[in-house]
Amino acid sequence: MRKLRMGMIGGGRDSFIGDVHRKAAGLDGMIELVCGAFSSSEAKSAASGRDLFLPDTRCYGNFEEMIRKEKALPPGGRMDFVSIVTPNNMHFAPAKMALENGFHVVCDKPMTMNLKEAEELEQLVATSGLLFALTHNYPGSPMVKQARAMVKNGELGTIRKVQVHYLQGWLATPVEKSGQKQALWRVDPAQSGLGGALGDIATHAENLVEYITGSKITELAADLNRFGEGRLLDDDGNILFRMEHGARGSLSFSQIAVGEENNLSIRVYGEKGSLEWQQENPNQLITRWLDKPKMIFTPRGNQLYPEAIAASRIPAGHPEGYLEAFATVYKNFALHLLALENGLKIEDPDYPGVKDGVRGIKFIQAAVLSNEKNAAWVKV
Amino acid sequence: MRKLRMGMIGGGRDSFIGDVHRKAAGLDGMIELVCGAFSSSEAKSAASGRDLFLPDTRCYGNFEEMIRKEKALPPGGRMDFVSIVTPNNMHFAPAKMALENGFHVVCDKPMTMNLKEAEELEQLVATSGLLFALTHNYPGSPMVKQARAMVKNGELGTIRKVQVHYLQGWLATPVEKSGQKQALWRVDPAQSGLGGALGDIATHAENLVEYITGSKITELAADLNRFGEGRLLDDDGNILFRMEHGARGSLSFSQIAVGEENNLSIRVYGEKGSLEWQQENPNQLITRWLDKPKMIFTPRGNQLYPEAIAASRIPAGHPEGYLEAFATVYKNFALHLLALENGLKIEDPDYPGVKDGVRGIKFIQAAVLSNEKNAAWVKV
Amino acid sequence: MRKLRMGMIGGGRDSFIGDVHRKAAGLDGMIELVCGAFSSSEAKSAASGRDLFLPDTRCYGNFEEMIRKEKALPPGGRMDFVSIVTPNNMHFAPAKMALENGFHVVCDKPMTMNLKEAEELEQLVATSGLLFALTHNYPGSPMVKQARAMVKNGELGTIRKVQVHYLQGWLATPVEKSGQKQALWRVDPAQSGLGGALGDIATHAENLVEYITGSKITELAADLNRFGEGRLLDDDGNILFRMEHGARGSLSFSQIAVGEENNLSIRVYGEKGSLEWQQENPNQLITRWLDKPKMIFTPRGNQLYPEAIAASRIPAGHPEGYLEAFATVYKNFALHLLALENGLKIEDPDYPGVKDGVRGIKFIQAAVLSNEKNAAWVKV
Amino acid sequence: MRKLRMGMIGGGRDSFIGDVHRKAAGLDGMIELVCGAFSSSEAKSAASGRDLFLPDTRCYGNFEEMIRKEKALPPGGRMDFVSIVTPNNMHFAPAKMALENGFHVVCDKPMTMNLKEAEELEQLVATSGLLFALTHNYPGSPMVKQARAMVKNGELGTIRKVQVHYLQGWLATPVEKSGQKQALWRVDPAQSGLGGALGDIATHAENLVEYITGSKITELAADLNRFGEGRLLDDDGNILFRMEHGARGSLSFSQIAVGEENNLSIRVYGEKGSLEWQQENPNQLITRWLDKPKMIFTPRGNQLYPEAIAASRIPAGHPEGYLEAFATVYKNFALHLLALENGLKIEDPDYPGVKDGVRGIKFIQAAVLSNEKNAAWVKV
Repeated sequence: MRKLRMGMIGGGRDSFIGDVHRKAAGLDGMIELVCGAFSSSEAKSAASGRDLFLPDTRCYGNFEEMIRKEKALPPGGRMDFVSIVTPNNMHFAPAKMALENGFHVVCDKPMTMNLKEAEELEQLVATSGLLFALTHNYPGSPMVKQARAMVKNGELGTIRKVQVHYLQGWLATPVEKSGQKQALWRVDPAQSGLGGALGDIATHAENLVEYITGSKITELAADLNRFGEGRLLDDDGNILFRMEHGARGSLSFSQIAVGEENNLSIRVYGEKGSLEWQQENPNQLITRWLDKPKMIFTPRGNQLYPEAIAASRIPAGHPEGYLEAFATVYKNFALHLLALENGLKIEDPDYPGVKDGVRGIKFIQAAVLSNEKNAAWVKV
Repeated sequence: MRKLRMGMIGGGRDSFIGDVHRKAAGLDGMIELVCGAFSSSEAKSAASGRDLFLPDTRCYGNFEEMIRKEKALPPGGRMDFVSIVTPNNMHFAPAKMALENGFHVVCDKPMTMNLKEAEELEQLVATSGLLFALTHNYPGSPMVKQARAMVKNGELGTIRKVQVHYLQGWLATPVEKSGQKQALWRVDPAQSGLGGALGDIATHAENLVEYITGSKITELAADLNRFGEGRLLDDDGNILFRMEHGARGSLSFSQIAVGEENNLSIRVYGEKGSLEWQQENPNQLITRWLDKPKMIFTPRGNQLYPEAIAASRIPAGHPEGYLEAFATVYKNFALHLLALENGLKIEDPDYPGVKDGVRGIKFIQAAVLSNEKNAAWVKV
Repeated sequence: MRKLRMGMIGGGRDSFIGDVHRKAAGLDGMIELVCGAFSSSEAKSAASGRDLFLPDTRCYGNFEEMIRKEKALPPGGRMDFVSIVTPNNMHFAPAKMALENGFHVVCDKPMTMNLKEAEELEQLVATSGLLFALTHNYPGSPMVKQARAMVKNGELGTIRKVQVHYLQGWLATPVEKSGQKQALWRVDPAQSGLGGALGDIATHAENLVEYITGSKITELAADLNRFGEGRLLDDDGNILFRMEHGARGSLSFSQIAVGEENNLSIRVYGEKGSLEWQQENPNQLITRWLDKPKMIFTPRGNQLYPEAIAASRIPAGHPEGYLEAFATVYKNFALHLLALENGLKIEDPDYPGVKDGVRGIKFIQAAVLSNEKNAAWVKV
Repeated sequence: MRKLRMGMIGGGRDSFIGDVHRKAAGLDGMIELVCGAFSSSEAKSAASGRDLFLPDTRCYGNFEEMIRKEKALPPGGRMDFVSIVTPNNMHFAPAKMALENGFHVVCDKPMTMNLKEAEELEQLVATSGLLFALTHNYPGSPMVKQARAMVKNGELGTIRKVQVHYLQGWLATPVEKSGQKQALWRVDPAQSGLGGALGDIATHAENLVEYITGSKITELAADLNRFGEGRLLDDDGNILFRMEHGARGSLSFSQIAVGEENNLSIRVYGEKGSLEWQQENPNQLITRWLDKPKMIFTPRGNQLYPEAIAASRIPAGHPEGYLEAFATVYKNFALHLLALENGLKIEDPDYPGVKDGVRGIKFIQAAVLSNEKNAAWVKV
C-alpha cells in the first residue's frame, strides 16, 4: 500500500467545493494533495497552494501546465490523479487532457456541458483503462448503501413508486446581483450549461434514484421554472418520470424554496416494503412493511448489509455526515486505484463513474427538451 | 341556542366513516343524532339505530322514506339536516332530495359521480338558501387554519411552489379479492366514479392546496397508475399542476405505498417564507424564513392567528387529531346554521361547501382526461 | 345495553377539565350527562347546565343536594354515577357521599388531600361494591396499552431502568398573580394539598411508570423546588426512585420549564428491549432491541396486542389524541359498569381506580417528606 | 503558519479512538501525525505506524522512548505535542512526562485515575506554560457552541433547571466475557478507575452541562448501579445535582440501556427561554420561549452567534457529525498553539482543558462517595 497523490484543478481560496474535496480526499489517510492548478492566475494558484503547505513548484497557473509538468516528473513523484472542482464548463477539457496523458480523474458533476462531451469522456475512459470518479457524494452515505442493498436483495419486491425531492432556498432572492460567488456561475448558462438547479441538484436526485433502485429512468415530463427575476436558467422544477420495470415517480427540485437548506429526500415503494431517506438526517433509514412495524436502520446498528457497514467509520450513534459520505467516494476510488495497481480486479467498484456522468447529461437534456415542449414526455 | 338534529344516510353497522361522522358531530354537544336511514334494508337500519339508542320509528329503510317522513314531523321535532356518509354513487340523489325538501346537507366527498350532478347541487344550494357542508376534514385542523391565515396575511409573500402528497398502503395487495368492505366499493367504478385513489384521497390533497393557498389549480398533467392486478381504477398517481398567481406544484398520491398509513403532507413556498404540515403529526406547523430560524407553531401555542386558536378545544401540548378536525367542520357548519336561524349573517363561513365539491369533481375529471392523453395539460 | 347517566360535580363555565370530561364521556355514545352541581351557586350551576341543554331541575347548587335529590328519583331516571372534576380539596367529600348513597364514582386526580381520606375511599369502594375510576388519562392511549402489554408479555425482559419526565412551562412566570384561574388553585395548599406540580403532574408520571411496568415504586429521594416567587408549593422537582424487581429510575417534573407544553415522556429499559413513549406525539411507540433495528409501533398498525387495538377508534395513520385517551378511561369504566349491571364479572378492568388513587397520595407524601429531609430515601 | 506535528500515544491497530483522533486532528489540514508509540510492543507499534505511512524510526515501543527521542530531534523536526489515547490508567504518566519535557498535550478523558494526579497535571500546565487539551468532543459541535452563546448572552435568563442523559446499550449483555476489547478495559477498575460508565460517559454529560450553562455543579446525590453480572464498576446511574446560581438538575447515564446507541441529550431551562440538544441529531438546536414559537437553529443557518458559525465547515443543511466536532477541539487547540508560537494571546481559548479534567475527576469522586452513602448529597 502507498499513499495516493492527488492534483487539484480549481478549488482556490474562496472556493466552497475545493475545500470539501480536500477534506474528503484526506479523511482516510489514503490520499495526499501534492499539486494544484487552483486558479487561473499563477500568483493566485500559488497563494492557495501555500495555504495548503504545498511548494510553489507544484502550484500551476493552469491545468494544461500542471498535466504537462507533472507528467514530466518521475512516476514515483508525480500525481496519480486529478480532482476537477471547477464550474461545469471547465470539467471537460481538463478531464480529457488528464485521461489522454495517463492520469486518472475525479470530476465534479454534472460531468460536462453536453452529451457529445460526455460520450467522448466515456469513450476515453474505456480506451485508456484509466479510472474516473464522478463526485455524486450521496451514494457514499451508509444508509444509502443499506437502501440499495435492500432493493438489490429483493426485500422490497418490484419497485412501483419513487418520490424524490431536492429543495434548497438560497437562490430565493437574486443573490447573484450582489455578487455572491457560488450563485454567479450557477445562474450563468456559459458556465453552468443547459440546466440551472436542474444540473446543480436535480442530477443528484436522478443519480440517487438510479443508484438505490438499480433501475434507469426511461422517460420524463418536466415543468421547469425561473422564479428569480431575469434568470436565464431554471431555479425550480417538477418532473414526472417512468422507469424500467414499471416504476413511476416524481422529482421536485428547487433553489428558491425559502428556508430549505439541503433537503434531498427519497421514498421508494416496492410490492413488499418501502424505504425513506433524508439527507439532512442521514443516519437513519426508515423502512415500512406490509405486516411488520416501521423499522429504522442506523449506521453500525443492527441487521445491516456489509456494504452499509463498510461505509461507516465510527460506532453506532456517532453521527456521520456530508464530508464522510463524500470521503467514501474518494475512498472507494482510491481502493480501486490501488487494486488496479496491484493487478487485482474489482468487478463492480462502488463509486459513481463516467457512465453516471453520461446519465446525468442525458437527464438534463431530456428535461430541458421536455420543458420546451410544455412538459411532453421525452426519452432519457 | 338549541341542539341541532341530525339524520344520517348510510353509516350502519360495519361502516367506518359513519361512526367517525357521529363522533365528530357529537363532540361539541351541539348536534344530536335523531334519525337515520343507515342501511338499504329496514331491519338492518333499525338494528343499527338501536345500537345508537334511537327509537325504531326514527330508523328508516331508505333515504326517500326518511326525508318524506321527517318532513311530515312538526318543525321542532324533525331533523334539521342530513349527513350523507354513503359510497360516492349514493351522494347525489339524497343530497338533491334533501335540499328540495328543505333540509340542510352535510355530505361526504367526492361530492358526486360527475360534474353535471355537482353543478346541479351547486345550483340547488344557491336557490334554496340551504346550507351544504362537504366533509373535507383536514381544513378543520388548527395548524391548517394557521397555515391558511399566514398565507392570507401575506407572511409568505406570493406563493411560488406547492408540494403535496397523500400516501396510503392499504391497497398494496388485492385486499378487495378477499372481500374487504372498504376496498370493495372503492375499486368499483360503479360506486366510486371516475377516480379510485384519485377521488378517495387526491381530492383531499387538492382541497388542502386550495384551502391553504387561497388560490385555484388552473391546469394539471396527470400520470395515473393501476398497480393492483385487474383494477379498473387508479390506485396511484403523480400530477404536475399550475395555479393562479404563478405557483407551480406537484401532487403525488397512492394507496399502494406499502407501509404508509395516512400520510398527507403539504409544503408551500412563498417569496418570503414557507410552511409544512403533516397530517400524521398534525399538531405542528413548520415554517421557514429568509432570515429567521425555523419556527414551529403548535395548537394553543404562541403567536397564532385567531382562526387557529378557535379550532382547538384543549390547551397546548394536548394532542388533537383526526376526529377533532372532523368535528370542527361539523361545529362550524352548526354555528352557521344557528346563525342563519337567528337571522345573523356569516360572511365567509369556514367549512368546505358545495363549491369545494364542484372543484373536486373538476379536478377528478381533468386528471382522468389528462391521463388518457398521456399526461397532457388539461384545464381544471 | 343502555346509555349510562352521568351527574357532574364541578365543571361549570370557564372550567377547563369539566369540558374535557364531558367530551370524553360522550365520545363513544355510551354515556349522557343528565345532571350537575357545576358551581357552588345555584344560579351559576343552572347557567352552566343550560349551556349543556340540561333542564334547570337537574342543575343543583351543591353536590349534597344533587346526590340527595337524584337518589330520590326512580332508578330508571336518576344518574348512575358522579364525575368529580373539582379542585383537589373537593374530591373526597363528594366521592364519599356518592359511594355512601349507592352511586359509582369517576374522580379526578390526585384523589384526595391526604392518605387518611384516600384509604377511607378505598375502604368504601371495597365494602360498597361500587365502581371507582380515577381519571389518569394517559393509560387510555393505545400506545401506552401496547407498551404495557409488551412488558407484561416479557418482550423486554426484566426491567432495569426507567426514565420519565413531565414538563410544562405555564407557571414559569407568576401567572397566579394576575388571577389566572387554573393557576390560582394549583398554587394554593388549601385547594391543592401537599403537592403543587407534584400532585398535578408528577402523579401522572408515577402512575404511568407503574401502569406500563406493572411494578411499584418502593422508595424515592426527592429534590423539590419553588422557583416562582412567593410560591408555597413546589413547581419543579427531580426524583430518584427504586422499584420492585430491581429497577432504578429518575423522574423529573416541572411547571416552570419555559416553552414546554405538556411534555410527558417515558423510557423503559429491560434486559432484552426497551421502549419510549411521548405524550405530545402519542401515536408512536418507539422500541429498541439487542439485535433488531429500532421498531416503531402505531395505533392500528402492524403487530399490536389486542389491548392496544381495542383502544383505537379509527384506522392507522389517523391521529388520536388527548381526548380519545381520556374517553377510553370512561369507556372502560362504562363497560365495567354495564357488565356489572348484567351480572358479568370483569377480572381486571383496564382503567385506573381507587388503588391507583391511594398510590398517588402515598407518592406525594413520600416525596414531600423526602424533600424535607434533603432528598433522603423514603419508602412509598 | 506551519503544519503542527503530532505524536500519538496509544491508538494502534484495533483501537477505536486512536483512529478517531487521527481523522479529527487531520481534518483541517493543520496537523500531521509524525510519530507514535502506538502499542506497548515495538513491533506492534511499528506495524501500526506503517499502516499510517510513518517511517519505522518514528514508531516507538513506549511513550518514554518517544518523548526522549523526539526531544533529541532538532526543534523544526520533532513533534510539537502528544495526543494520548490510551485507557484511563495510562493518561497521567505520559501527560506528566510530556509536560515536563516541553511538549504540549492533548489527552483523552477522564483525565486521570484520581484527583491527586489531576491536580498535579493542573499544576504542571500552569508552571510550564504549555497547552493542554482534554478531548471532550461534544463542545466542538456548532449547535453546542450556539447553546453556550445563547446562555452567555442572557437570552434564556437565569438558568433554573437542567436535564441531561447519556444512554448507551452496548454493555447490556456481558460482552466483556467474550473478550470485546472496548468493554474489557472499561469494566476493569485497574484500567478505568473509580467509575465505569460514570467515567466513560457521565463525565461527558457533566462537562456539557458546565460548558453550556457556564456554571458549576456544586453538589450531587448519586444512585449508581451494576446490572451486568459480576461487574465491579457501575454501568448505570441516576444523579440529582445542584448548581451555582440556583439551578437544579438530574443526570441519568447508562451503558445497559438496550438499543440506545449514543444518546447524549440535554435540556436547559432558564427564566425566559430554554434549549434542547441531542447528540444523535446534532445539527439542530431546539429553543422554546415564553411568548414566541419554538425555534430551531441549524449550523450555518439563520441568526447564529459567531462562535457557532466558526465551528462549521460546510453550508447549512450539509450534516456535520461526531468527527467534525472532535476536529474542532483539535482545530482550536492548534490555533491556540500557533498563536502562542507567534506571540499572540488568546484570552479564553475555546477547547476543554486541564481544569475541565480536574472537574471531571471531582465529579467522579463525588458521585462514587455519594453512592457509597446511599445517594447522600456530596459537594463536588
